[in-house]
Amino acid sequence: MQLETATIDIGTSRPLVLLHAADADELGAHPLDRVRIEWAEGTTTGIVKRTDELVEHGTVGLTEPLHHVRGPVAVTLAGSPSSVGAIRKKLDDAELERTELERIVQDIHENRLSDVELSAYVSAVYANGLSLEETTHLTTAMSEIGQQLTWETPVVADKHSIGGVAGNCVTPIMVAIVAAAGVTMPKTSSRAVTSPAGTADVMEVFCDVEHSIDEIESIVAETNACLVWGGGVDLSPVDDEIIRAENPLSIDPEGQLVASVLSKKRSAGSTHVVIDVPYGEGAKVESLAAARGLADDFKRVADHLGIDVCCAITHGADPIGRGVGPVLEARDVLAVLEGLEEAPESLRLKSIRLSELLLDHCGVDADVLDLLESGRALERFREIVAAQGGTPDVSYADLEPAAESTAVRADRSGIVTRVDNRALCDLARRAGAPLDGRAGLVVHPSAGDEIDVGDPLCTIHAQTTAKLEEAASLADRLEPIRVRSKTDALVERR
Amino acid sequence: MQLETATIDIGTSRPLVLLHAADADELGAHPLDRVRIEWAEGTTTGIVKRTDELVEHGTVGLTEPLHHVRGPVAVTLAGSPSSVGAIRKKLDDAELERTELERIVQDIHENRLSDVELSAYVSAVYANGLSLEETTHLTTAMSEIGQQLTWETPVVADKHSIGGVAGNCVTPIMVAIVAAAGVTMPKTSSRAVTSPAGTADVMEVFCDVEHSIDEIESIVAETNACLVWGGGVDLSPVDDEIIRAENPLSIDPEGQLVASVLSKKRSAGSTHVVIDVPYGEGAKVESLAAARGLADDFKRVADHLGIDVCCAITHGADPIGRGVGPVLEARDVLAVLEGLEEAPESLRLKSIRLSELLLDHCGVDADVLDLLESGRALERFREIVAAQGGTPDVSYADLEPAAESTAVRADRSGIVTRVDNRALCDLARRAGAPLDGRAGLVVHPSAGDEIDVGDPLCTIHAQTTAKLEEAASLADRLEPIRVRSKTDALVERR
Repeated sequence: MQLETATIDIGTSRPLVLLHAADADELGAHPLDRVRIEWAEGTTTGIVKRTDELVEHGTVGLTEPLHHVRGPVAVTLAGSPSSVGAIRKKLDDAELERTELERIVQDIHENRLSDVELSAYVSAVYANGLSLEETTHLTTAMSEIGQQLTWETPVVADKHSIGGVAGNCVTPIMVAIVAAAGVTMPKTSSRAVTSPAGTADVMEVFCDVEHSIDEIESIVAETNACLVWGGGVDLSPVDDEIIRAENPLSIDPEGQLVASVLSKKRSAGSTHVVIDVPYGEGAKVESLAAARGLADDFKRVADHLGIDVCCAITHGADPIGRGVGPVLEARDVLAVLEGLEEAPESLRLKSIRLSELLLDHCGVDADVLDLLESGRALERFREIVAAQGGTPDVSYADLEPAAESTAVRADRSGIVTRVDNRALCDLARRAGAPLDGRAGLVVHPSAGDEIDVGDPLCTIHAQTTAKLEEAASLADRLEPIRVRSKTDALVERR
Repeated sequence: MQLETATIDIGTSRPLVLLHAADADELGAHPLDRVRIEWAEGTTTGIVKRTDELVEHGTVGLTEPLHHVRGPVAVTLAGSPSSVGAIRKKLDDAELERTELERIVQDIHENRLSDVELSAYVSAVYANGLSLEETTHLTTAMSEIGQQLTWETPVVADKHSIGGVAGNCVTPIMVAIVAAAGVTMPKTSSRAVTSPAGTADVMEVFCDVEHSIDEIESIVAETNACLVWGGGVDLSPVDDEIIRAENPLSIDPEGQLVASVLSKKRSAGSTHVVIDVPYGEGAKVESLAAARGLADDFKRVADHLGIDVCCAITHGADPIGRGVGPVLEARDVLAVLEGLEEAPESLRLKSIRLSELLLDHCGVDADVLDLLESGRALERFREIVAAQGGTPDVSYADLEPAAESTAVRADRSGIVTRVDNRALCDLARRAGAPLDGRAGLVVHPSAGDEIDVGDPLCTIHAQTTAKLEEAASLADRLEPIRVRSKTDALVERR
């Protein structure tokens, strides 16, 4: 069928092809069918949507991934991409071959799968799992797409946390310590997807985080390290597409998680990696046994890829550090590096311990406590910030959270029994983080602390009173920090 | 966030909410997140898409399911529908409770699930199966949505074929025979979705098939039967949404299939049902053992629902009848009813045998062969056609296939080893069926027949020479009817 083209702007990564209902009928094309589009310069495929108004009879509407196609075009029905057969095979709980996993990764990368197909892939991997061999093939296939970084030093240190813990901004501190110890650590991090702040959002408080590969190479040459946004360098980009289907289902299948993390590390050229696996109530991994199993999987797959991985199983039931939100976490980072009294002990301890692990893993003998307390880590951090275009002498005192604030206070005295990561993250997002860099919250007590009625449990910061009130009312409903009376079994009488 | 509204026409059953990227960021809404929309007359939810051009900053674009919403509206982030938790539970291979299945069905019915979520449901049911109890709950929940038909007679006959066989248009013949035997058989059928002709498409060759419930009641009162399109009476409509996700994956999970078929029968008020389960190479069910298992499941679930089901396991590896496409299948139906020499024996035999089974199952003693050969079935068929607004004296000779035609001929002599249902269906669709009612094909030999070089294997009919050529070239590639030489092992030398 010969059609004219029109460009349609809908925010979708999928190559949607809007056909007038009459043209779709004529073609025999149903919604979600694929069509082949031939135009003067080539051939591509897209996924059919029907419409009565958005395009006219005789015109085909093309969304962004197809905006380079200009009419007239010949449109014919096309079959499903071959990886749909492999997805069905995984739904049937059969072992996938290397080539099948490569085809799935390629089709995801080229946006050839519809949402229905992508979700079936994620669901199949979640329901039926991936063997060690499948995970290794998947990791390799994912890492071979996108950019590849290479470094001249034989040891390239890296770290990753599987996430789910509020605050937990150990990365900038670790990078500063490890680089100060003379080890190369070119760190790429993500921005927040469903959390109130990714490491890249925190670093953006200090300096630019979007750098080209050339710029990253010169930053690393100068300081032994960098702290940049990974999205700017396109490492293992297939991961982002897969996450798009995992998020609405709140699933994160283990084999996929291992492949996603290690493919990024492989593309980044990392040789020695510490993976932080926080476990506990409400964390991604609930039990110590599950954390150990995941750690073993990481090590086994990494072995096959020639990456030296060491896993740190850590406490994940409550936050690390006090701040939640870009500026508030950046303050915690500086407090630790500057050795201030305000430094949250949980963040300081975890940063020291993981740095020791990583340096030991790299075969480097260094006194981490001395690097931190001597101010050499702070100095290195400031050099990195300067190399990334920030103000080098930034200090704790310069960072101001959003002006509107309110404290959530204990309505009874007793022991703090629960500091809920997920509820605190929801609260910080409601207050405006990460879009408002200065919005978020500060957590006051830790689990086990004694509390008097009226003591502040957390302080919420927001740019506007409207946002502040929204967050405060959410806090009432979520009760993110729970206190149990030592003397009364009754919580309240109604 | 306060926004103005604009209506957007994209062909989607999902309530999509197009947000300008700046508004989406401000709200913290990611693609596929849900938002709650409050307007003067109520509250509803929609699924977020981001756009830079289709709507302006400050305006929200609403697709068809939300076209009743008029601005200004308040838009806030909303959580996932509760059935997403139940879908995750099924992915975890846990047994779902009645209320969880009801919630899934309700959310599908109200278009609250995104494609990712709907696909995860279908994938989970396919990967982990449904227990007998789950299938029964699902069937009940599905049948309680949409219209319910009720009949005054105690015995209401019905039939269903699980499909996958080309031609196979036994339904109009069976309805004519059963109604002529004095049994009520108000039959609703589907139009083609991925096949070249549904029973409704075939009946439309003779008369109207879209009738209101009142009209159906009067047609049945007059003739004991009807042969109408089920989509016009909205029986168990959730099925159609589920099929939308099953089709692109080419999966049809057994528990879901049983629930889909029986929920429609329950809504239609049927009491005695014959289910045709064709099995064989390339059919939906490949082995006799699998066909028996499926038949047992149908009977067990039907028992719980108080429907009397009897299953006919039939041959499904090759076509039943000769015509494929609406008019060509209608011709076969008339040839059988009129007792012509042109009547395909496979269609005649299957119609007789299934009618005998159904009447026996209803406890009615009738001579099916006599009903057919005496012309009483034909007479009843013409009465039904007349009651549905068609020409009552239509006959085989009046039905003309599309004028452009070409024969696909055997390029060697030997035995027909395979007549491939799926390839023939693809071919008939390529020729233009079902949209061109007179397009399609006629199959000449059956598997096992002896063939000489140059004998016609099938004849393709199309409205235009372009369509005809397209179909003929597809026939070359698919080789839908395979012939094996009795005297030479070599197929060809290249």
